[in-house]
Amino acid sequence: MKNKQTFNFVAVILLVLSFSCKEEDSNGLLVKDVSEFNDAVKNAKPGDVITLANGVWNDAELVFEGKGTEGNPIKLTVEEKGKVTLEGASNLQIAGEHLIVEGLVFKNGFTPTNAVISFRKNREEMANNCRLTECVIDNYNNPERQVQDYWITIYGKNNRIDHNHIAGKKNLGVTMIVGLDTKESLANNHSIDHNYFGPRPTYGNNGGETLRIGTSHHALENSKTLVESNYFDRTNGEHEIISNKSCQNTFKYNTFFECTGTLTMRHGNETMVDGNVFIGNGKPSTGGVRIINETQTVINNYHVGLTGYRFRGAFVMMNGVPNSPPNRYVPVIDSKLSNNTFVNCDHIQLCAGNDSERSQAPRNSEISGNIFYNENKEDTFTVYDDISGITFKDNLLGKNGKTSIKEGFENADITLVKNEQGFLIPTSDKIKNKITISPNVATKENTGIAWYSKADNSVALNSGKTIKVEAGINTLYDIVKTSEAGDIIELETGGAYLITKAVQINHPLTFKTSGDKKATILFERMMAFEIKNGGSLSLENITFDGSKSPDYAGNSVISTSKNSMIDNYKLFIDNCEFKDMVVNHSFDVLRVAKGTFADTISIQNSTFKNISGHIAALDTETDDIGAYNVEYMIMKNNTVTDLQGAALRLYRGGKDESTFGPFLEVDHNVFNNVGFGSKNKYGAAMSLYGVQVNDIQNNNFNNTKGLAMHLVVGEPIVNVVNNNYYKSGKIEITGDQKYNIENLWNLNPQFNEGGFTLSEKSPLKKKGTDGLDLGLIN
Amino acid sequence: MKNKQTFNFVAVILLVLSFSCKEEDSNGLLVKDVSEFNDAVKNAKPGDVITLANGVWNDAELVFEGKGTEGNPIKLTVEEKGKVTLEGASNLQIAGEHLIVEGLVFKNGFTPTNAVISFRKNREEMANNCRLTECVIDNYNNPERQVQDYWITIYGKNNRIDHNHIAGKKNLGVTMIVGLDTKESLANNHSIDHNYFGPRPTYGNNGGETLRIGTSHHALENSKTLVESNYFDRTNGEHEIISNKSCQNTFKYNTFFECTGTLTMRHGNETMVDGNVFIGNGKPSTGGVRIINETQTVINNYHVGLTGYRFRGAFVMMNGVPNSPPNRYVPVIDSKLSNNTFVNCDHIQLCAGNDSERSQAPRNSEISGNIFYNENKEDTFTVYDDISGITFKDNLLGKNGKTSIKEGFENADITLVKNEQGFLIPTSDKIKNKITISPNVATKENTGIAWYSKADNSVALNSGKTIKVEAGINTLYDIVKTSEAGDIIELETGGAYLITKAVQINHPLTFKTSGDKKATILFERMMAFEIKNGGSLSLENITFDGSKSPDYAGNSVISTSKNSMIDNYKLFIDNCEFKDMVVNHSFDVLRVAKGTFADTISIQNSTFKNISGHIAALDTETDDIGAYNVEYMIMKNNTVTDLQGAALRLYRGGKDESTFGPFLEVDHNVFNNVGFGSKNKYGAAMSLYGVQVNDIQNNNFNNTKGLAMHLVVGEPIVNVVNNNYYKSGKIEITGDQKYNIENLWNLNPQFNEGGFTLSEKSPLKKKGTDGLDLGLIN
Repeated sequence: MKNKQTFNFVAVILLVLSFSCKEEDSNGLLVKDVSEFNDAVKNAKPGDVITLANGVWNDAELVFEGKGTEGNPIKLTVEEKGKVTLEGASNLQIAGEHLIVEGLVFKNGFTPTNAVISFRKNREEMANNCRLTECVIDNYNNPERQVQDYWITIYGKNNRIDHNHIAGKKNLGVTMIVGLDTKESLANNHSIDHNYFGPRPTYGNNGGETLRIGTSHHALENSKTLVESNYFDRTNGEHEIISNKSCQNTFKYNTFFECTGTLTMRHGNETMVDGNVFIGNGKPSTGGVRIINETQTVINNYHVGLTGYRFRGAFVMMNGVPNSPPNRYVPVIDSKLSNNTFVNCDHIQLCAGNDSERSQAPRNSEISGNIFYNENKEDTFTVYDDISGITFKDNLLGKNGKTSIKEGFENADITLVKNEQGFLIPTSDKIKNKITISPNVATKENTGIAWYSKADNSVALNSGKTIKVEAGINTLYDIVKTSEAGDIIELETGGAYLITKAVQINHPLTFKTSGDKKATILFERMMAFEIKNGGSLSLENITFDGSKSPDYAGNSVISTSKNSMIDNYKLFIDNCEFKDMVVNHSFDVLRVAKGTFADTISIQNSTFKNISGHIAALDTETDDIGAYNVEYMIMKNNTVTDLQGAALRLYRGGKDESTFGPFLEVDHNVFNNVGFGSKNKYGAAMSLYGVQVNDIQNNNFNNTKGLAMHLVVGEPIVNVVNNNYYKSGKIEITGDQKYNIENLWNLNPQFNEGGFTLSEKSPLKKKGTDGLDLGLIN
Repeated sequence: MKNKQTFNFVAVILLVLSFSCKEEDSNGLLVKDVSEFNDAVKNAKPGDVITLANGVWNDAELVFEGKGTEGNPIKLTVEEKGKVTLEGASNLQIAGEHLIVEGLVFKNGFTPTNAVISFRKNREEMANNCRLTECVIDNYNNPERQVQDYWITIYGKNNRIDHNHIAGKKNLGVTMIVGLDTKESLANNHSIDHNYFGPRPTYGNNGGETLRIGTSHHALENSKTLVESNYFDRTNGEHEIISNKSCQNTFKYNTFFECTGTLTMRHGNETMVDGNVFIGNGKPSTGGVRIINETQTVINNYHVGLTGYRFRGAFVMMNGVPNSPPNRYVPVIDSKLSNNTFVNCDHIQLCAGNDSERSQAPRNSEISGNIFYNENKEDTFTVYDDISGITFKDNLLGKNGKTSIKEGFENADITLVKNEQGFLIPTSDKIKNKITISPNVATKENTGIAWYSKADNSVALNSGKTIKVEAGINTLYDIVKTSEAGDIIELETGGAYLITKAVQINHPLTFKTSGDKKATILFERMMAFEIKNGGSLSLENITFDGSKSPDYAGNSVISTSKNSMIDNYKLFIDNCEFKDMVVNHSFDVLRVAKGTFADTISIQNSTFKNISGHIAALDTETDDIGAYNVEYMIMKNNTVTDLQGAALRLYRGGKDESTFGPFLEVDHNVFNNVGFGSKNKYGAAMSLYGVQVNDIQNNNFNNTKGLAMHLVVGEPIVNVVNNNYYKSGKIEITGDQKYNIENLWNLNPQFNEGGFTLSEKSPLKKKGTDGLDLGLIN
């Protein structure tokens, strides 16, 4: 109740400020450069307003310090909102009392320090009773993906961070933290409210959280931070959208829109999670709340369309470590999940993470008064250990809902009714109090800033115009220079294209042959295509011939930038042919660099023949800190013949549990004479390390090296099902995780046009999981 | 004789050209941009002169094609020599007949194609009877070290490439090649003469040759190329300074000044090597001529001060592969080494490379009339196999000279007399014909271009001024911005320096504490120092404390640029202390990126304590194509305590034999509790793979993980001598090469001030190879 009053009071202030923002204050001072700013700061008295002049402030490292009073704060604002940008190596430190910062926009650069905006100048001098409002940090990323920074670090006490627009963080590091490393920052009563947290793409390693409060070192300190009415829009960095790591914090009325991961109570106790909304829209890995530790309360939240499993379930209550140190998993005690609504959410996970270390099931906890309604799935509960320490009561399931949990659930004839806010609300005779969503819940409209657009500017592959390009020397190189994002470059049927300069892909582009006969691309450089930061590539119906490539080891048809790429990329290869890549050893189809990350690499309906290297060596992240090169890897319906290297190397080292992938699907391929080159270090046709989903199905392996799989962390899903291994190497599985190998046959395949099918004469005619023949889909 | 006449004739022409170069020719045409150039080329008639206007030609891809006549060539020249530069993405293709190119300077950029200057437009249209003279290619490097290009590719016939200045190639790829890939380029009679080939630093992989004639595919074709009077100044890229890969080529009057590697007759027969000079000046890995294949003639050459061994001996005659395919090692037959002079050269290698594959010793060959004089070494010959196929006669040794070869050598009382050219000439009663060096031999003065400086602009560490810097926040960061190459930055004794922004080292810089008490550097970023391209770093008498570093995996005190570095760097650490680097896992002292290469990393007299990562993980080149991260690695007189990772990981994968290093010296260190962290993947305190020289001596290992060593290629030198391994892991050696382990003790060391010494009470008091105690040198 107190929180609500605070909010209303502050909202009034905000309204007043909004109206006055374009008028120059009477005691205002317009400053035009850092030197003038510094002078103004030095002389500032309570009630003063320091105004940054319109324009670009480049490499401006501002320290805004001073002592205002409650009635007469000192304010830092801008001449006109949206017309002042801080770029290059700019940042801001706030230190003192009763300071207000308003209207700053950080973009086109990155901070050289560890924070773009910090509520302290140094460990001793911090900000109290200050406010950061209507500020923007937009794609202000260190170009080195693996170099860490924060965007906002909050220290001191009684600070408010509201109505800011914070979008597009892509490098290592939590977007916003509340720091508790000195006692002056404890029990801080900060309010983080009405902020718009815009898209944060999958980071592919730990360190992609959007908000963290505390650290494991301060797990048992009270932070007392209020996180209210913020909108989290696809903040997908990693498992933990919010990482709560201290005590007595409150999360209220926040909206999580299509976010992969969960609001995680990673450390600390007495957290209140009340009245939040989680909208999954069926997107993969979308989750809700995850409970660890003691006295956690999750009430009145609404969840819809969440599909995530394991640590990113719609609700996850974890097992703990007996006598856990604070930085591991403190067992769940005295916690409750009550009066929450789950609509079409696929996974409720109880005792999750149960293993030899996390062996302590929840105790003295309660799951009560919740609605678990799923139109498509009968049982959404997974129970990994003893649930006798959880009391279940008064929960409702849908009419067809089931659970193995014996008590505390009742079926109800539920229908969904859309309310005026657009939410699907379960209704039933058995639901006594109508389910409502607070009007205070965050929306895209009531968060962030009216004057700064929340529009998504990303351009999809194949969304642009089609450009025809003539066969010849460097015609492809030239056309790309004039192309725009999303364009489709159409090659002549049967045309020959020679590239003497590597074609740089700086935006999403598609290359395809029009007509039946594939055009052929030859290239004189070490790569034909180089995907640079911002680029994505789709190749369709094209032949790549490596015979003109340099007589050096290490060519590739496609290469990522050798430098770090801050933007995730996509690569689609469909119906292409790759051949005669043997001019020297280690000639790969795809070569990726450390510090690059693909959302998706899909290779389908293609043929590979006579190649000295690998198809894809996605194993450049060897630091074993949890990083990897690709989220979704798909190989489907391809024929691979006489490949000296590996069809695939995929590596995700370390034991971190913050990420989702890699996800791998290898389906209906034919592998013939693969992996026998002396440079194929691991001696396997496919070598998979730490991959989280391994679906390997319906493939035909002939005279081919084996499959090496190391299973280490995250309860990976391993289905090696309905494959034929004829005269081929072993499937060698190491590590400490479970796996499923079924229907591994050893049958003499008969060569057919385009691949293998099992002999008609064979008495053991086997089919794939989908009823089709193994190997190529005809 | 014919060659000499040609030279004189050409010299006269050159003289005439030089005098006329500043006058605009009557039928000359001054062009100001590429479009005007193209028009001029299109309309050019025999006798025309196309003149590039003064200034910078940016991104100029010039195609100079046309048909001149012998008497009236078409000429491309510049308005004023040295005032026309081609920069950015510029290059030149020459195609046609009787064309002359003169005065072009390529710098500040790199070619997007595979050649800066090419004697063809495409495979069909090439240059004949053309000349490239007084052109410059200076540090015109692709910034990606591992992306390949050539600087000059020569095709066609009867072309002359003379008096050019070609210096500073640092990325992958031979500097100049003669291509034989079409029959129109065979028996070409090209003359490559009077060029200045300036310094090419160690590349650290195959692909650092300066000149290659042919390839293994054309090994048996006649090239008939003359390479005369060129100056090779420290062209150190790799083993093969010149890689001769075709038949009937002549190398005459060239000078090789302090070049690591050899003039190598890699493929092809009937090579003539006559009258060349090899000057080693005692530099490591300097070599002379290496013979493979048939009917090779090496006569009248002068060698002095060459120290190289194995494939870079002063003279190397290799073993071959019986029935060798052309791309392996064709046995030596009918070859001779006659009338050559070797002064103070350390290694003559016969039957080198003898192994199970290269089992065929030379046949029907001769070594006669040579002088092998060494003031400091009695026997300079190493014989690896049967030498009965070599006839030895009339060779002279010095008075104290010895050899195991039974016949054909005589001792002589030789004295060295400096001749007027400055060469030390052996004289003796037994030397009938006075040894002379041809006046045609290349010098720095008579090669290259008078108007383009050959000065070495590199700046050494510690060559600049001393700057004092006050303790405080970011004072180091600020001072570096104003520093100059070679400066010494002096820290206050006992001062505390906090770095909140990574200090970027863009040129050679030294940091040292003045006074006794080490200054302490703390840093809030993932690295304190980042060595960028062009930078080198020396740290002396400083404490590094990791306690303020970010709570993320992967910090390091020093990091290289994460992007490729085209310049080799140096790192010296002396008398420093590294401590408390445990805020998160994988905190390393030094972290290097793929695509970077150190000439030297030296860590001496320092202490390391309580660190979660490695001291140096120099294993980022995992493509197994022969690349590696450091040439000379030295760890001496250090104490390492409680290091969770490895003291050193050093990796050189692949089986290529083109390179020298890595060279490793680990001497008089103390290792205590090293390598037990769960993230130390290889479970070794030191893990060495493919290292070429492994000197590990006089160390004291206590309660420490083992030493893992994989020996694969290049007859590595392995001396693990006089070390104490107490309660420590094994020395595990894999691979197929020989090694020497001697005096491996297992004695209880007694802790002493600053390290370990053996107990006085021990009856087995062991000493190091140098007579000092094991472990630290007191």
